[in-house]
Amino acid sequence: MPTDLELARASGQLDIKAIHDLLLLPSRKLLRDKVQNTLEKEPLWDPTIRPHLNQAQSLLRSLRLCYRLLQLRKLHNWSQEEYREALSLSDDKLPTTLHEIAFINIIYSQGTNEQREQWLPRCQRLEFVGCYAQTELAHGSNVQGLLTTATYDYEDGRDEFIIDSGGIEGAKWWIGGAGVLANFALVQAILKVPRRGEGVESLGPHLFLVPIRSLTTHLPLPGVTVGDIGPKAYGGFAGMDNAYIKFDNVRIPRTNMLMRFAELARGGKYTKAKHDKISYGSMVAMRARMPENMGWVLGKAVTTAIRYCVIRRQFTSPGELGGNEIQVIYYASVKHRLFPLLAQSYAFIVCGRELQNRYTQMQEALVSRGDTSMLPEIHSLSIALKVATTNDAVKGMEVARRAMGGHGFSWMSGVGVWWANSTASQTYEGDNYVIAQQTARGLLKHLQRLHQAKAVGEKDYELPPSSGYLNLAARSFWLNPSVILSLLSSRAAYLLGQLALAISTSPQKSWTDHSFATFALCRAHAELYLASTFFSILSSRPDIPPPVYTLVLIYSLHTITSSLSDLLESETLTPSNARELRYVYDWILMEGLSVSDVVSLTDAFGFRDWEVGVLGGKEGRVYEQMWDEVQWREGKEGRGKREKVAEFEGGQRDIWERVREEARGVLGFWKEGGEVQNEGERKRAAKL
Amino acid sequence: MPTDLELARASGQLDIKAIHDLLLLPSRKLLRDKVQNTLEKEPLWDPTIRPHLNQAQSLLRSLRLCYRLLQLRKLHNWSQEEYREALSLSDDKLPTTLHEIAFINIIYSQGTNEQREQWLPRCQRLEFVGCYAQTELAHGSNVQGLLTTATYDYEDGRDEFIIDSGGIEGAKWWIGGAGVLANFALVQAILKVPRRGEGVESLGPHLFLVPIRSLTTHLPLPGVTVGDIGPKAYGGFAGMDNAYIKFDNVRIPRTNMLMRFAELARGGKYTKAKHDKISYGSMVAMRARMPENMGWVLGKAVTTAIRYCVIRRQFTSPGELGGNEIQVIYYASVKHRLFPLLAQSYAFIVCGRELQNRYTQMQEALVSRGDTSMLPEIHSLSIALKVATTNDAVKGMEVARRAMGGHGFSWMSGVGVWWANSTASQTYEGDNYVIAQQTARGLLKHLQRLHQAKAVGEKDYELPPSSGYLNLAARSFWLNPSVILSLLSSRAAYLLGQLALAISTSPQKSWTDHSFATFALCRAHAELYLASTFFSILSSRPDIPPPVYTLVLIYSLHTITSSLSDLLESETLTPSNARELRYVYDWILMEGLSVSDVVSLTDAFGFRDWEVGVLGGKEGRVYEQMWDEVQWREGKEGRGKREKVAEFEGGQRDIWERVREEARGVLGFWKEGGEVQNEGERKRAAKL
Ligand SMILES: Cc1cc2nc3c(=O)[nH]c(=O)nc-3n(C[C@H](O)[C@H](O)[C@H](O)COP(=O)(O)OP(=O)(O)OC[C@H]3O[C@@H](n4cnc5c(N)ncnc54)[C@H](O)[C@@H]3O)c2cc1C
Ligand SMILES: Cc1cc2nc3c(=O)[nH]c(=O)nc-3n(C[C@H](O)[C@H](O)[C@H](O)COP(=O)(O)OP(=O)(O)OC[C@H]3O[C@@H](n4cnc5c(N)ncnc54)[C@H](O)[C@@H]3O)c2cc1C
Repeated sequence: MPTDLELARASGQLDIKAIHDLLLLPSRKLLRDKVQNTLEKEPLWDPTIRPHLNQAQSLLRSLRLCYRLLQLRKLHNWSQEEYREALSLSDDKLPTTLHEIAFINIIYSQGTNEQREQWLPRCQRLEFVGCYAQTELAHGSNVQGLLTTATYDYEDGRDEFIIDSGGIEGAKWWIGGAGVLANFALVQAILKVPRRGEGVESLGPHLFLVPIRSLTTHLPLPGVTVGDIGPKAYGGFAGMDNAYIKFDNVRIPRTNMLMRFAELARGGKYTKAKHDKISYGSMVAMRARMPENMGWVLGKAVTTAIRYCVIRRQFTSPGELGGNEIQVIYYASVKHRLFPLLAQSYAFIVCGRELQNRYTQMQEALVSRGDTSMLPEIHSLSIALKVATTNDAVKGMEVARRAMGGHGFSWMSGVGVWWANSTASQTYEGDNYVIAQQTARGLLKHLQRLHQAKAVGEKDYELPPSSGYLNLAARSFWLNPSVILSLLSSRAAYLLGQLALAISTSPQKSWTDHSFATFALCRAHAELYLASTFFSILSSRPDIPPPVYTLVLIYSLHTITSSLSDLLESETLTPSNARELRYVYDWILMEGLSVSDVVSLTDAFGFRDWEVGVLGGKEGRVYEQMWDEVQWREGKEGRGKREKVAEFEGGQRDIWERVREEARGVLGFWKEGGEVQNEGERKRAAKL
Repeated sequence: MPTDLELARASGQLDIKAIHDLLLLPSRKLLRDKVQNTLEKEPLWDPTIRPHLNQAQSLLRSLRLCYRLLQLRKLHNWSQEEYREALSLSDDKLPTTLHEIAFINIIYSQGTNEQREQWLPRCQRLEFVGCYAQTELAHGSNVQGLLTTATYDYEDGRDEFIIDSGGIEGAKWWIGGAGVLANFALVQAILKVPRRGEGVESLGPHLFLVPIRSLTTHLPLPGVTVGDIGPKAYGGFAGMDNAYIKFDNVRIPRTNMLMRFAELARGGKYTKAKHDKISYGSMVAMRARMPENMGWVLGKAVTTAIRYCVIRRQFTSPGELGGNEIQVIYYASVKHRLFPLLAQSYAFIVCGRELQNRYTQMQEALVSRGDTSMLPEIHSLSIALKVATTNDAVKGMEVARRAMGGHGFSWMSGVGVWWANSTASQTYEGDNYVIAQQTARGLLKHLQRLHQAKAVGEKDYELPPSSGYLNLAARSFWLNPSVILSLLSSRAAYLLGQLALAISTSPQKSWTDHSFATFALCRAHAELYLASTFFSILSSRPDIPPPVYTLVLIYSLHTITSSLSDLLESETLTPSNARELRYVYDWILMEGLSVSDVVSLTDAFGFRDWEVGVLGGKEGRVYEQMWDEVQWREGKEGRGKREKVAEFEGGQRDIWERVREEARGVLGFWKEGGEVQNEGERKRAAKL
């Protein structure tokens, strides 16, 4: 008998291929397919093992994944791109990831040509394995306030830096890849240069390449205290060895400072970088990648949830006694929760790639011509999108999980580990509430210049593309893209105006007092960009089937109806407009996409079964699979899972035997009048 | 040197005791203190072990906790109340919990006097350990649609039920306490009575007491397939052995059906229960306890976050170079996130207790006089509060965690396990989106009768207290309780009106189409109740210091500003009203509570240090403690933790040794030209 999923597909006619190509460029698809075909056959990638492991065991597993990836790279002659794709296809963040995407990238972008030549080959062959060490126990967001110092020592012909944490509060903390793996760290430290007779000059944070573990014994080097910081919330990042690293007067050569931009010459002459944001380049690169990634992981969650809600049935229609129960996907509360998430996921992927293209252009201009003109705009935009997409994707994944009812709370929904690994993205690469303020500052600056330009009768001040809407104001029919974009524009402009007003009317308040308003502004800015980019990408693609247009509308109207109070308060909309809008939005959700459409739209992601949750298998035979999946502990064979898990547990005895014995002990309590039952209990009782 | 927390306290003058008594009645405090004083000394309760364990290990630990609690109960002669308090004071949900709060309670409330006498003593001494088995693999919300049947067999003088799952989709699933522990299950099954010559009569779900494991061997009984369903999302409920149970024609005596209300006599005569909701009684009891519990766990998270944000400093004020950095609690975005959570936590605790009092009154009326008149109101109200408080507390805990920046993502924030255990509360005891509809239905019924009453010119239809606002409409100054309550009333009334309108104007739509609107209505109903109850409780308590009043205002204004679009759309407020309201709300958050106030308000919860996160210690020496906490794995002693964790791992070798070896293997890869390094890798390579 065909499953409900198969029936839904049979009734749909969507050209999935075109949609899939929109989400994943064919070139990238080739690459991803190649890697997936390989990983799919690897027993270590079995996603059903991971939920059974604790942090130490997960780390053990993820190190094995790292190792195996290196073997596979060699075996299959993977390119750097293919290897990185493979790294990203694990549910866990792997210890070697930061080596690839932070350590190597930063040496490349901020090292001089000699530094690149000297270090990169050894990094490529994993002789040097590195991490990025900025955050400290007592400092993260405030990079200027770091306690770690790099003091230049040029006495007696020496030409070295002394790296020092200055106490435990200056110990590096959260450093991914360094808990057990890395032997090098790129350390952010305050550059200090003693000036004879004039005290010590403090030149702000710079990057230094510092060896932390021996290349031969892999033991910490003298002066370095390093180790793993332990489990994280929700079991997140369990496969990543986040570390603390404390430096006690560790000496490195002067030439270990990355000097492509700022420079310290032998003897102490310092040359400043040309552009003050230039060293943020690598941060921008990381952030620019996040929106698309968020789209994909939200896509996994929503694929699982939609598929499961298509096969899940609960309650018969009143009057239809004895008939089939209703597929829960038909409930308004399910559509209202899941369809906007599908729309967000598409928007983040499609617009996220566009952002990366713009980043690449900027980076090329920077590296080839030293041209920094695009930096401020990309800097500000990547922050806005990082903030909005991490926020919404994380929120959305948990909504998707809950939409699966009880089974959503099983590891089999898959969402647990994706969410736990993703929620920290709101904090790393800059805490969202902290960095949102930078976008807001940029926007305030534009507004000021706009006002000034108007005042002296000059030619209109030209706004960067993402802020062009500040000139706009219009209104008409709700599904018209220009209406929608003008509403989103008005909203962002209104929030900006309100912030400017608050600042100008209460000069006694400090910037500290506005950090909530700046967050709202930053999000509004990002949401406008996402909607308009998504619209414009689709307008040039007549080959894409209509349901994807419906997704853009859902994305936009969801955003607008979630911010109705801004639009009503600013009198952009009247109360009856708002009611109409909500009505139109409800109508699109309830009628705009058929169940077969949404099945196709999730199929179009192209996820393999091992990438989504057990609840989200493509075929839809959920209950049989769930049943199978729980049998192995009770002695049924089930694909050798007992052995696979035991491999990680490393115990002499099956832990479930111990668990059962313990249970019998509890049960036996009454029998023995409260006396202990077995050895374990006897020992514990002795401690009484 | 005093910490920032100590300084904040020194500058405060609040009478913490009065506030603490408001949160925790002195009688309960005595009891909790007694239990806490004992548990505090128990090594097993050390909360810093738990994050290091996987599901099996957590279960091992929680079973030991269960066992130890039984020992302690005996040793200290704990009352039932004290024992239950102790059960609830563990971070993990314990396997014996459902035995206490579901199994025993339900037998008491739904068993006949003989059934009580026959079973309860054996339950009390843990000879019978039970679970509550309602949900099935394919059915949860729809109890009427359960597949498990209890078929009465009275042929040949037999007088038995045959319990059968009817296939794996009818297997019980999620059954807490039964994975390894319980030997009895209270099974919801569809009662079927064959009527000679007239087929089989189906009488809907009833409860049956079914033995599942042998009282002597503790092995599953014939016809029973039972086991643990495996890890849950986020590592939640790791200490609970949620189970599947499949029944294949298991026979039990007729007298094992709970028959206080509905009855099946020997031979098959069936007597219906008097009130159709009567068997939900125990569900109502569970739900009525949830709001207060949610308040306490949110309170832990917010205590940790506020304390940490008082000691956490980041950035100097512009212009104040070299000065102290700002305590992050002073940032608007921190106040806007944390203070409303503090207010919610107080509201949930105080009003949640009030709800339980009303439940107790109802229950007394029911049990002593068979009086069911209060049932519908308490049923509907407990749903509304369950929905709103689980939703907000869960959302709030994660907000609190993120407000702690990077360290919030460490297990040391404590929030991870609280949140992971709590988020499922939105699903169990009835999925929020499903049960919200019942409150909405009830309200629609009231509205209808209100209209009818008006139409025939009768005396006004009398509304139950929680819905009294439907008659109201007024407006005035924003901090006046009557204004606030009338705004919240108008909002709920507006949502109800809109829903009624939508139903009446589109008769072609089904109830299915309204499940999103009903959720919003249910929340609005609950939020009005919470605000008004909180106000009225405080109005009779002049001894409570003013900052608690400020919390009620924050709770109310937070709710109102979060639902401004409803109030604007309904034209209850004008745009300029809305701006004013937001202004007032911002002002209260920024100026209404001093840092010393919020420290006192969190101190007033009375949490011990082991109950809150490491980041939330009372003294505020966070960094030293964090540093200590990460040393043990690297061989430093640190309170014998290595041994404590190893006890659960049960391996011959320290797992961290294996982890380090694995890391060395990865590092060695380049050296050996890609050859394998150690035994483990050699084995894996062989599988290539
Ligand atoms: C999983 C994970 C992996 C990481 N990996 C690395 C790594 O590999 N290398 C590395 O160097 N670091 C890493 N980090 C650290 C991360 O970059 C920092 O945690 C992050 O930048 C936030 O800084 P913080 O922890 O100091 O937060 P804080 O700044 O201390 O934030 C605490 C609170 O104060 C608020 N706050 C602070 N300043 C302001 C302000 N000016 N205005 C308003 N509110 C403010 C924040 O919003 C937050 O609520 C990682 C972190 C995590 C969670
Ligand atoms: C940690 C945990 C512990 C548990 N412990 C126990 C236990 O000890 N004993 C026990 O018997 N059970 C237990 N349960 C099961 C729990 O009671 C059910 O999971 C819960 O009632 C939800 O039912 P469901 O899983 O069938 O969800 P479903 O009803 O299948 O929900 C799936 C989706 O459909 C939607 N939906 C369903 N019906 C409607 C409708 N009419 N209108 C709109 N939307 C609808 C839901 O909102 C949800 O989005 C536990 C569950 C968990 C997570």
